[in-house]
Amino acid sequence: MKVHVIGIGLIGGSMVLDIKNLHPEATIYGIDNNESHLAEAIALGVVDAAATFDDLATSDLVIVSVPVDVALIVLPKVLDVIGDNTIVFEVGSTKSPICEVVANHLRRRNYIATHPIAGTEFSGPSAAIRGLFEGKTNIICEVEKTTFKLQEKALELFKSMGMRIRYMDPKSHDKHIAYVSHLSHISSFMLGKTVINKEKDEQDIFDMAGSGFESTVRLAKSSPAMWTPIFKQNNKQVVKTLEEYISNLSKFKELLENEDYDAIYNEMQSVNKIKEILNGMHIKK
Amino acid sequence: MKVHVIGIGLIGGSMVLDIKNLHPEATIYGIDNNESHLAEAIALGVVDAAATFDDLATSDLVIVSVPVDVALIVLPKVLDVIGDNTIVFEVGSTKSPICEVVANHLRRRNYIATHPIAGTEFSGPSAAIRGLFEGKTNIICEVEKTTFKLQEKALELFKSMGMRIRYMDPKSHDKHIAYVSHLSHISSFMLGKTVINKEKDEQDIFDMAGSGFESTVRLAKSSPAMWTPIFKQNNKQVVKTLEEYISNLSKFKELLENEDYDAIYNEMQSVNKIKEILNGMHIKK
Repeated sequence: MKVHVIGIGLIGGSMVLDIKNLHPEATIYGIDNNESHLAEAIALGVVDAAATFDDLATSDLVIVSVPVDVALIVLPKVLDVIGDNTIVFEVGSTKSPICEVVANHLRRRNYIATHPIAGTEFSGPSAAIRGLFEGKTNIICEVEKTTFKLQEKALELFKSMGMRIRYMDPKSHDKHIAYVSHLSHISSFMLGKTVINKEKDEQDIFDMAGSGFESTVRLAKSSPAMWTPIFKQNNKQVVKTLEEYISNLSKFKELLENEDYDAIYNEMQSVNKIKEILNGMHIKK
Repeated sequence: MKVHVIGIGLIGGSMVLDIKNLHPEATIYGIDNNESHLAEAIALGVVDAAATFDDLATSDLVIVSVPVDVALIVLPKVLDVIGDNTIVFEVGSTKSPICEVVANHLRRRNYIATHPIAGTEFSGPSAAIRGLFEGKTNIICEVEKTTFKLQEKALELFKSMGMRIRYMDPKSHDKHIAYVSHLSHISSFMLGKTVINKEKDEQDIFDMAGSGFESTVRLAKSSPAMWTPIFKQNNKQVVKTLEEYISNLSKFKELLENEDYDAIYNEMQSVNKIKEILNGMHIKK
């Protein structure tokens, strides 16, 4: 099996580590604009060798794992040069623009639009880890547009990585993911900003911040290069979630200003059910 | 050694578990208004036996670990009945009101105002765990108001639990902690609310929420009974942090509406230094 990964970072790198583990006979080829990332990926054993787009005609599987703005350019180019039976994944955090851009491509049926909901706040080849996708959800969009035989192979691979599969149309995907992923990143970045701005003397943060702050601000370590194009592509949905979030925060602030502590108690209690929801996530892994 | 813990939850319970581990000869007595918590704490072996306020005269150490509004009533009562050499800790997340309420108490010198910055999102006796304070910071306020001999004993105990000690005046404590703890809780609760409100069908959250959302919303599992009085006592500071947070979120939303992606990139990049700050927290443990 010949596998090509274009953009060797957290998601693409982790995916090929799993593939190599499941299929030791597979050869993993890397393509990356960033020469030092490519060299690092080879040195770390994440990929076996470098490749170019010319090699994709004989590839069994191409994984496109680049920032979502770059994917809009790279994916059509990939589809232009692959073979009849090459499967192509693209794993970005927005799905409508990418599905639109290849909607009429002659090789649309070789492409599977996926979003494996997995990750850490780290990036680059050194962030790749085996088992990242175990127990995680993989959203597949427009599955009906992919050739059945290639669908089957892809599903088998996702399942062998331990992923749960869910099907969704691209618009619903982008709307929902704005709430459970994109908004979390902004809330975290702006929390980090608020505290950093206040505490000019960083020693104070470091002395008083506990695990609660650390957990809430973790996503503020994420890569701006990855997240800026996500916010661009999902602009309208993200602005909408942000409006609702700001409105909820403003109402909470009003309750504090009015010293309405019964209402504050009730607000928090009604959100406490997030416990059961999150527990559900784990039970149903 | 006779130790009494008043309010046997996450903090008080974890503290006596450590004490029992470090001093196996110690007898741990529990006092709790909640009969079922008391019974549960005994059944779990967190405390050895139940006690009453009448027993405090012969206690070596009393730990007051109740919600901060209850502490304002309980701590003076405790100081009324303890012996000459009894040490009293109180471990709440606000320090100005409690320090004011006992400022002129005849036994002020037996009291150490502390805030061990440790915790999880769980509560009650079953949340108590050994080693919770290892590597964590303990803020002590107005240390000069405690008898030197009792200070020494308390510090020895905190250090044997693995805590780093920092001294701070109550007002500075309450101001700083609003940023690194109280605000995180509100940002998390309101994030949970925003998503729950949107996703009436909880299945959607559960299907699409990844570890990023889980981390950011973790604090929304926290106890409203504990947090409402904290927000009440630190109202002014919390409102101020919330204003700054809302203002930063609104500016970010404006950048999105104006499609100023260079500025969005720069915003995120400037907050990325939170990485080094959080790493510093761990290195200097």
